[in-house]
Amino acid sequence: MSKKRIGIIGAGPSGLAQLRAFESARKKGEEIPEIVCFEKQSNWGGMWNYSWRTGVGKYGEPIHGSMYKYLWSNGPKECLEFSDYSFDEHFEKPISSYPPRPVLFDYIQGRIKRDNVRDYIRFDTTARWVSFDEKTKKFTLVLDDLKNDKTYSEEFDYLVVASGHFSTPNMPYFKGIENFPGNVIHAHDFRGADQFKDQELLLIGSSYSAEDIGVQCHKHGAKSVTLSYRTNPIGVKWPDGIEEMPLVTHFEEDIAHFKDGRTKRFDAVIMCTGYQHKFPFLPDEMRLKTKNNLYPDNLYKGIFFNDLPQLIYLGMQDQYYTFNMFDTQAWLARDYMLGKFELPDKRTRRGDINVWLQRNESLKDGHDHVDFQSDYIRDIIKLSDYPDFNIDKVAEMFKEWLNDKEENILTYRDKTYRSVVTGTMAAEHHTEWMDEMDDSKERYLFEPEEEESDDVKMNSTSL
Amino acid sequence: MSKKRIGIIGAGPSGLAQLRAFESARKKGEEIPEIVCFEKQSNWGGMWNYSWRTGVGKYGEPIHGSMYKYLWSNGPKECLEFSDYSFDEHFEKPISSYPPRPVLFDYIQGRIKRDNVRDYIRFDTTARWVSFDEKTKKFTLVLDDLKNDKTYSEEFDYLVVASGHFSTPNMPYFKGIENFPGNVIHAHDFRGADQFKDQELLLIGSSYSAEDIGVQCHKHGAKSVTLSYRTNPIGVKWPDGIEEMPLVTHFEEDIAHFKDGRTKRFDAVIMCTGYQHKFPFLPDEMRLKTKNNLYPDNLYKGIFFNDLPQLIYLGMQDQYYTFNMFDTQAWLARDYMLGKFELPDKRTRRGDINVWLQRNESLKDGHDHVDFQSDYIRDIIKLSDYPDFNIDKVAEMFKEWLNDKEENILTYRDKTYRSVVTGTMAAEHHTEWMDEMDDSKERYLFEPEEEESDDVKMNSTSL
Repeated sequence: MSKKRIGIIGAGPSGLAQLRAFESARKKGEEIPEIVCFEKQSNWGGMWNYSWRTGVGKYGEPIHGSMYKYLWSNGPKECLEFSDYSFDEHFEKPISSYPPRPVLFDYIQGRIKRDNVRDYIRFDTTARWVSFDEKTKKFTLVLDDLKNDKTYSEEFDYLVVASGHFSTPNMPYFKGIENFPGNVIHAHDFRGADQFKDQELLLIGSSYSAEDIGVQCHKHGAKSVTLSYRTNPIGVKWPDGIEEMPLVTHFEEDIAHFKDGRTKRFDAVIMCTGYQHKFPFLPDEMRLKTKNNLYPDNLYKGIFFNDLPQLIYLGMQDQYYTFNMFDTQAWLARDYMLGKFELPDKRTRRGDINVWLQRNESLKDGHDHVDFQSDYIRDIIKLSDYPDFNIDKVAEMFKEWLNDKEENILTYRDKTYRSVVTGTMAAEHHTEWMDEMDDSKERYLFEPEEEESDDVKMNSTSL
Repeated sequence: MSKKRIGIIGAGPSGLAQLRAFESARKKGEEIPEIVCFEKQSNWGGMWNYSWRTGVGKYGEPIHGSMYKYLWSNGPKECLEFSDYSFDEHFEKPISSYPPRPVLFDYIQGRIKRDNVRDYIRFDTTARWVSFDEKTKKFTLVLDDLKNDKTYSEEFDYLVVASGHFSTPNMPYFKGIENFPGNVIHAHDFRGADQFKDQELLLIGSSYSAEDIGVQCHKHGAKSVTLSYRTNPIGVKWPDGIEEMPLVTHFEEDIAHFKDGRTKRFDAVIMCTGYQHKFPFLPDEMRLKTKNNLYPDNLYKGIFFNDLPQLIYLGMQDQYYTFNMFDTQAWLARDYMLGKFELPDKRTRRGDINVWLQRNESLKDGHDHVDFQSDYIRDIIKLSDYPDFNIDKVAEMFKEWLNDKEENILTYRDKTYRSVVTGTMAAEHHTEWMDEMDDSKERYLFEPEEEESDDVKMNSTSL
């Protein structure tokens, strides 16, 4: 009998977690199926693979990444640590709790570089169309080899969709925006605060993008940052130079009108208005249709598409937990695909989903959200051999983090947390976050001698 | 026997020409096939349907349009006039030779509004995947109804690809561009000169986008415009404030280094580096693979895909002629689909293509290009009943236009030309182009009384 074939779409944190899950089984002597992972970009890492490009990439495909220069983790790294590959193991010394993007990217890669999983991945390859044959119970994927401009089809027994949901902007229309004379972009196309120096900036939105891009632009010299919220303000204590206003009703040239009647002139508008779950390669009956949500409907255990459980979605939740949640999902998905985890019947699955949906409805605040997602992780981590970690403690850290941010949005990244994987206390970063203008890995990891400080900085920024 | 079915992808100038061609036959009493035209956007007009959006649209599909505010025709309208629907017929008075976008958009729509062809078009619908069955000789299109998030399939006997080739940016990498602190965009995402006021602007490229965006930004107050060319400069006499430099070799932060060793600091970079022919919905063996070119290979008579002539491409040429060329192509395609125009065998077609390719190789300058495309139009216009027009005279106008631009890039749009369709001499515009900051149809068509001039301007810009 020929080996089962598994197709994975996306080699970001979720897709890589799936590859690592299979590698982990293989190393324990299990026979694993044939695996092919398709990645649209030329490198792995998904969102963490920074690109200077916006719009479409070199082969004309929509750009995946929403990353920007000077992005630092906006939650403690101790809340996302892989429980089978610690920060200590990777960096061989304690680092701070809020590393910048290049450092986290390095960490993600460390685990998989060790495993040689790169061979499973076909880069510069995008999934164009998927169909499912009810008779053979197989998926046919139409693939587009972008580099060679060649299309071809392959069959798979299981399909893992790990293409993320922070890539396709949701960009509402505001009356008059078409006549706004300045730059109007979505957060997805924001590549760094530099170009907004000395500008009066309007950010529409009140979630993580708005909060972080607002703070980054403030740090890097924007003249003023105004955040406009639809329902509720973010509500932290903002420093001078950042303020929150209710929703924009319309624009007149460069003047924004707000719901409370106030008006203000702006140089640029950044829409931090969220993302769409978008799966253009799937027929609509296989598409996950959901808003950003802690428990998207129709996914049993948060991953198995209930109408067709051979179709598995990873990481489609709104996220407090990230890398470690993707891991618990990927390990469970692996065990199902290896025949070691059996699914109950569809109705039972539906019932289980409904319980979570109901509870999701009743959540009131950030602390509730953290508890909910912690319980979700608890629910699935016990179903596979993914190394257990102290979820109670991580939940506590998430709540502390929420408080830290409320206390001071500019200094919360100077706090340190203790790893639940190794027990190591994070190091304090050599420079306070507000004074640290260089986000390179070199600068982050090696504290410069005081007298050399200026030189090192110049070198690393001019790389 | 059931009616033949024709699928058209795109309701821009080419797709609409195809609809109009069939309508014209229907009005003459011919029986026409069943026609469905799929348009990704919510309105027709393709490139002429301006959107303030960049990146992806409201349904997350790559934005089609590359239009910007203050775009005025960059060639005389007398060179693109439909020979079956004149500017006189539409506007009922002479207008100038270089109308702004809204005026041309109005003109395109006039002809088709009269014909009720809107019913053929399914808006907000994108083609996801096409396959062709060798046995039934039919195409199957997978379509995505974006508004309703529904996918479905339909069969067609002929497929007309009219999706344009100025939508997918070609954006080369320049060393160091990832550390350029200012805005870096492709011309595709340029939406107007306002945001570049008082800035030092670098435009990479030496074709129409670079020329026109450069001049627009100069007109609207950029501090300086530098055009960087790969092979040859545009070479017109530039006014103070615009200069040409050789190719950028690399960037160091906001400093561009040029091939001749010079350096300059810039606030923003606009890549006017052209577009890719991109057909993600087609299997690669049906894809037209070509650079921007006056005679793309593998298209018999410039439209019939030689390996499978039921597959027709409209408007895929580099363009001097535009609307009138799309018409001659669409009329010929129609006659083929109606069985009135028979194709010779594949080898004969290949021979015909080769003759054009060879001549294309030998073209030396703009005048040669004009003659070549004029001869192409001559070659195909005689094959259908599309109303003949004085191609000699149009070719002459193109050459005059090339001279006008060389003479003065800032005033060539003040020149007037005579219609070959009606014999009407264009009107002089009420305001010199360099002084005309308002591109609205209202302002263009109705000359304001002198004392009201300011008010009218304010009204129309604040619409």
